[in-house]
Amino acid sequence: MNCVFGLDVGGTNIKFGKFIDGTLSSFFEVHTELGDDPVSSILNIIKTNINSHLEEGESLSKIGVALPGPVMDGVLLGAENIKLGTIDFKKIMEESFPGVEIRVLNDANSATLGEWYYGSGNKKPNMVMVTLGTGLGAGIIINGKLYTGANGSAGEVGHIKVVSGHARPCTCGLFGCLEQYASATGIRKTAYIFRKGKDTILNKHGRISVRDIFDAAEQNDKVALDVIDKTSYYLAVGLSDIAVTINPDMIVLGGGVSRGGKILLDSVIKHFNNLAFPTIRDSKIVLASLFNQAGCYGAYYYVNSLEKK
Amino acid sequence: MNCVFGLDVGGTNIKFGKFIDGTLSSFFEVHTELGDDPVSSILNIIKTNINSHLEEGESLSKIGVALPGPVMDGVLLGAENIKLGTIDFKKIMEESFPGVEIRVLNDANSATLGEWYYGSGNKKPNMVMVTLGTGLGAGIIINGKLYTGANGSAGEVGHIKVVSGHARPCTCGLFGCLEQYASATGIRKTAYIFRKGKDTILNKHGRISVRDIFDAAEQNDKVALDVIDKTSYYLAVGLSDIAVTINPDMIVLGGGVSRGGKILLDSVIKHFNNLAFPTIRDSKIVLASLFNQAGCYGAYYYVNSLEKK
Repeated sequence: MNCVFGLDVGGTNIKFGKFIDGTLSSFFEVHTELGDDPVSSILNIIKTNINSHLEEGESLSKIGVALPGPVMDGVLLGAENIKLGTIDFKKIMEESFPGVEIRVLNDANSATLGEWYYGSGNKKPNMVMVTLGTGLGAGIIINGKLYTGANGSAGEVGHIKVVSGHARPCTCGLFGCLEQYASATGIRKTAYIFRKGKDTILNKHGRISVRDIFDAAEQNDKVALDVIDKTSYYLAVGLSDIAVTINPDMIVLGGGVSRGGKILLDSVIKHFNNLAFPTIRDSKIVLASLFNQAGCYGAYYYVNSLEKK
Repeated sequence: MNCVFGLDVGGTNIKFGKFIDGTLSSFFEVHTELGDDPVSSILNIIKTNINSHLEEGESLSKIGVALPGPVMDGVLLGAENIKLGTIDFKKIMEESFPGVEIRVLNDANSATLGEWYYGSGNKKPNMVMVTLGTGLGAGIIINGKLYTGANGSAGEVGHIKVVSGHARPCTCGLFGCLEQYASATGIRKTAYIFRKGKDTILNKHGRISVRDIFDAAEQNDKVALDVIDKTSYYLAVGLSDIAVTINPDMIVLGGGVSRGGKILLDSVIKHFNNLAFPTIRDSKIVLASLFNQAGCYGAYYYVNSLEKK
């Protein structure tokens, strides 16, 4: 049987998706132990786990690898959280797996492709997947292909200015960036501001997690509901700016904050319909569905696809 | 000799570009006299003027036509300012010019293609052309092709929100849209506000034109310079939002306001470099160069190109 692996290499875990004859047959995660020689360590984890998961009668034909840094023509241009500099990752994988077809891509792009083809994106020709994680960024599909822009900066939508003037300062040096309001960091900042002097469940702990906010909202906590409303409003401003520019068929919301689910989605759609330009109000906004498997699905798609190598 | 016409049909004039063996050999405009039967009138103007400009030895092979309304598969879906409803414009042109290849497209798209291929766009793979006219909109080239989005609304960037909250109301029903600050209408609004109670050339006339503002700025009029600075700032906010989304190789500024030239461009670039996300600061921002001929060049390009018919 034909076996293909889709890998998603991150700073905490390496995720493995094993596909047999086109279907995900197993998914597992292994801790990213970097040691003194990160390249050898990562390769060892990959080799050991792929080999131990190959069963009799299975023939390994391809491996797609998603890496947490910019990738050009199979070369990783550095990835801080796995302690790698510039390295021809495709080549070293080919040396470790002779005869196996290897393709390497950036992990955000991989998650976008995965969600687009196998998840909520529904293979629509034009899709934007916005990831609401610690930071906030987007992957873009145009005419059925990943689009990364002139220098790979397409989708840096966390730095759309959603508040005028000297608003919240951003890590990029600017003010009022979407990321400061709608990422996990942003929604928590809003929660810290809103809870002050209020009678709210959010005052039970010193540190607030994104989960705390959504849990409190489910218990109808007024402050938590306000935090979600404010977050959704700014996210809708950003999505509206994206939609009048790209006019995608679909906007998919992924990342940790999107786990807030229906209460977040409904609020975003409400604000979007109030403030988006009329002809783009029918842009479909949906939640991602593959969660932490999106990267593996995308790497699998990429190594099987006709996208430029 | 092989002759191709690129036409740009507008509410005031129909522009004719005559191309001989790939070069624009003549350009002229004819008043759009609509009468009681706009279709026949327009066709007559086109037929009469093309035929009278064909010289001996010239063989008419193709005509590209830009129309002031949405176009799908050669069908115009209505154009208010030439009093046309839905009409298969390609077909009626084919009936008027048997044996001649006809292609029809929207005029904003046509100007974008023209400026991209023959003007300042320099055939870069990814370009955004922002037209600063009475309104404000953009044409987008992605991977060397016109990109119009899910329902033709890509490039409605006049409705990017550049000022928070209940700022200047827009014709679209929203507030703080870029169009209200950086279109011809927008810059004039700013001028009316800024001149109040000030010692400025702009108080010489009741009504202010865009030209008045740039003329006054050339004479170092402080208020006019402030108007241009403010306009450029908001335009730069919008361009920055576009650039972090699409990351184009080049942004071209066209339309009446862009005739403000170097003083406007320098100011836009200054603000863009101050407030755009670092990795997109090298986006090239330039002025359009084909002016009122862009539509004819684009129609010529379109009828000669491999773009989807």
